Amino acid sequence: MTQTPGEEPKESIRSPTRTGMRLIVPLQGVVQGSGGLILGSLIPCALFYFLQSYLKRKRSAPPPPNSPSGSTSAANLSELPRSSSRASLLSRRSTGRIHLSVRANPLAKPNDSPCNIGMDRVREDPYDEMANPDGVIQLGLAENRLSLDLIEEWLSKNLSHSTLGLGNDVLGLSGIATYGPVDGLMEFKVVMANFMTEVMGRTVSFDPSRVILTSGATPAIEILSFCLADQGNAFLVPAPYYPGFDRDIRWRTGIELIPVHCRSCDNFTLSIAALEQAFNQARKRGQKVRGILISNPSNPVGNLLNRDMLYDLLDFARERNIHIISDEIYAGSTYGNEEFVSIAEIVDTEDADKDRVHIIYGLSKDLSIPGFRVGVIYSFNEDVLAASRKLTRFSSVSTPTQQILVSMLSDTRFTQDYMKTNMQRMRSMYDLFVVGLRELGLECTKSNGGLYCWVNMSRLISPYNENGELDLWEKLLNTAKINVNPGSAWHCIEPGWFRFCFTTLKEKEIPVVIERIRKVVESCKPSV
Amino acid sequence: MTQTPGEEPKESIRSPTRTGMRLIVPLQGVVQGSGGLILGSLIPCALFYFLQSYLKRKRSAPPPPNSPSGSTSAANLSELPRSSSRASLLSRRSTGRIHLSVRANPLAKPNDSPCNIGMDRVREDPYDEMANPDGVIQLGLAENRLSLDLIEEWLSKNLSHSTLGLGNDVLGLSGIATYGPVDGLMEFKVVMANFMTEVMGRTVSFDPSRVILTSGATPAIEILSFCLADQGNAFLVPAPYYPGFDRDIRWRTGIELIPVHCRSCDNFTLSIAALEQAFNQARKRGQKVRGILISNPSNPVGNLLNRDMLYDLLDFARERNIHIISDEIYAGSTYGNEEFVSIAEIVDTEDADKDRVHIIYGLSKDLSIPGFRVGVIYSFNEDVLAASRKLTRFSSVSTPTQQILVSMLSDTRFTQDYMKTNMQRMRSMYDLFVVGLRELGLECTKSNGGLYCWVNMSRLISPYNENGELDLWEKLLNTAKINVNPGSAWHCIEPGWFRFCFTTLKEKEIPVVIERIRKVVESCKPSV
Repeated sequence: MTQTPGEEPKESIRSPTRTGMRLIVPLQGVVQGSGGLILGSLIPCALFYFLQSYLKRKRSAPPPPNSPSGSTSAANLSELPRSSSRASLLSRRSTGRIHLSVRANPLAKPNDSPCNIGMDRVREDPYDEMANPDGVIQLGLAENRLSLDLIEEWLSKNLSHSTLGLGNDVLGLSGIATYGPVDGLMEFKVVMANFMTEVMGRTVSFDPSRVILTSGATPAIEILSFCLADQGNAFLVPAPYYPGFDRDIRWRTGIELIPVHCRSCDNFTLSIAALEQAFNQARKRGQKVRGILISNPSNPVGNLLNRDMLYDLLDFARERNIHIISDEIYAGSTYGNEEFVSIAEIVDTEDADKDRVHIIYGLSKDLSIPGFRVGVIYSFNEDVLAASRKLTRFSSVSTPTQQILVSMLSDTRFTQDYMKTNMQRMRSMYDLFVVGLRELGLECTKSNGGLYCWVNMSRLISPYNENGELDLWEKLLNTAKINVNPGSAWHCIEPGWFRFCFTTLKEKEIPVVIERIRKVVESCKPSV
Repeated sequence: MTQTPGEEPKESIRSPTRTGMRLIVPLQGVVQGSGGLILGSLIPCALFYFLQSYLKRKRSAPPPPNSPSGSTSAANLSELPRSSSRASLLSRRSTGRIHLSVRANPLAKPNDSPCNIGMDRVREDPYDEMANPDGVIQLGLAENRLSLDLIEEWLSKNLSHSTLGLGNDVLGLSGIATYGPVDGLMEFKVVMANFMTEVMGRTVSFDPSRVILTSGATPAIEILSFCLADQGNAFLVPAPYYPGFDRDIRWRTGIELIPVHCRSCDNFTLSIAALEQAFNQARKRGQKVRGILISNPSNPVGNLLNRDMLYDLLDFARERNIHIISDEIYAGSTYGNEEFVSIAEIVDTEDADKDRVHIIYGLSKDLSIPGFRVGVIYSFNEDVLAASRKLTRFSSVSTPTQQILVSMLSDTRFTQDYMKTNMQRMRSMYDLFVVGLRELGLECTKSNGGLYCWVNMSRLISPYNENGELDLWEKLLNTAKINVNPGSAWHCIEPGWFRFCFTTLKEKEIPVVIERIRKVVESCKPSV
């Protein structure tokens, strides 16, 4: 599905000279009988020169007709006399199939990843207690539906012309209709910075002038990545990790992601030793590592990075002079007893170099409004802010949406009540869900945040590898009719782990889900 | 401002082998006295081999410290023993400045183009009849404020909970809050296709399944370009052209734009001969042309492409097997007597190969709501649709905005009235403005669409070149305090042309503008 844009140029750098060497050496035998020093030294050089020219010509020649970027027929046809008459349009209909760019070609093909197949199944046959009780239950999407009633209530009470900036003397209609700043209205930045301060536990204060607003966290991470690394460069990413990063970062920016595998025996906690190893291995391969991308709370594991680890990460990044991107989109979606610590707090309390630290945030998870498409780049680096601001022209938030959210986030009584209630509901759902799984003999990692739990089903898979895992995933999807994400799709190195999103459910649906899982568990012959 | 991403790898392909050749040849003299055939042939090969290894090592070594992508200090430091103690954070504060990616570096610098300087001046010191009568008047932004009252009236009358999909049984709140299709709701595609049919004069019917919605036309053109051409490929663009294309297409996709210069003697009309010449020249340079990008109505000239020209363009594109992108964002913003013809009509009436034809549209101009950020990719190519759909994850329209617009565009009585009234107002403003300019001895091109006129001020500039043009532009901005766009910024090959947007004005402001221009005209010594 994804391209690996860095590979092609590397190959073409090396192959000509290697081939040259291979050809020159055996040819020496041919001239040994008759030649002298001059012949012996000139022939290899001359041969090499012609070979170079040949390979150079070959390199710049058009690709074969079946190549996706081939415009061979176009090149030939441009020699033909051109007629501009309309009548000829019909007769010369098919001069050749027009091609997509090489980089877009893989995107035109259907996505047959388990995550996508599962989403399609939910779309085709969604569970509904009354209308479709045998439908597929969605646990494969990190969407929080637990507190939508609170958002709806606020909108119902507060949505008015003034919410949209209509009839407002300062903004008038032109405030929502006309061109605004591409990186968001300053009023929106101010309330967003305040909301982030609230969400992150008020241990750090966010500066509105460092907030850049984008149409979702997806473009936020892409824009930020584009600014930090060039095509073929890499980021280290503790794995298991969100597979969306493979699309968001690799598709268009051409940056590589290097998974740094975490293990179940450590509750999938990141270690600096593993980072160091991955960094050094990448360097040996000649790959330039430009940053570390962490999720805090982790997606899919749900654990938090503590202060010590954040300090260690900052140390590690500084010593290697690389960036840190901290994806904190679940910062306010915690339900455990551990405290969430933003990396902003670490760079704020210490007078450390902040220039390398960048945060991704958004309202899709903590405020349950992914449909509003609001993401945030928060950076301590002025150059990154300047470049990112310009790139938001491709991913601006629509002004009516900004105006609604300025009103909503300004209502701090609402946001505080919402956060409190939502966390309580999450904790209650998490507890119920985990208890249900435990009754089936299934354990989750110790987690504190996120809209999911990370479930160990390894004793149910056979064989103990990715195939066994995918067999179980298919059984869950097609027999139990629940859509969950298999760990292999999340770059988990140990087979048999699954991500179950529990915030898409109603409380009364938990027994239904547990019952469906029970049937699969009972049908599997436990391998332990 | 823009990168040329193709150059670096090419350089590194060539330099090692070239250096190798240069070193081997003089070294032959050293061994001529004592050696024989074996020495003579082996030494160059051995030397070459070691040189290769040396250069390879050097290639993978980090760039010098002042290189923008340099991580030299990181590489050196990674050998040092790493301490993870927090106390050391302060002492090792500055191990090196962290750098942006090479491609983002130019974006971090301030934009000092005339268009940007003019926009800044308007922002700092905006004209207001009462509050700031000496402020800068905006004629540099293609924004239509003539009919905002109609939009405001509709919103005031119709904005309700149901407009946003609230309290709707089918959608409920989850309809606007939760994840939706990244390329837009089907309901929105249906009303958008109908609106496009209406705008394009009902001569062609648009198919909702070919509509892809994006957060503005800016990401629409970028996504489409990414799908049609690879880095280093090129599009032909009739010039003068919208300078935004340089950002939208070149910044991240790395595609080059080749201006095809049109002349005032032809009313800046495109000719196929000029296209052919540009295409052939590009081919000679080894550049792969993947498409033609046209604006219809033209921005900045305001003229329309007639049916014959569209047929000719399609012929030209088919013979060279290249794409056609038709930017029709001003399709409904016409005011002249000529009829607008969409390229969709041409491919629809003829049974020609449609796969190469793609249209860009949006609501920023024809419905005067750029703040809503709604753009459209309309393509006849299934692969382009499939790939573009996936890429809209970076540029989705927020669902509340989609819901408002579903309601607005479904109200066809409103949209028809709006279009009619808006066109009348545009025509009246255009007439008044052109008459005012003519009284000053300034002529515009014959135009039929767009929110601007293209004014010949060449007799006022001295010297007759870009410097003279920019002198006049500065005088208009700083003396007359009107912000207009100089033609050089629009890749116009003839100096002295300016784009004046007249739809940002109120009718009563026209005499003020004309009076301000008069002072500049009178202060210039006409060169004719």
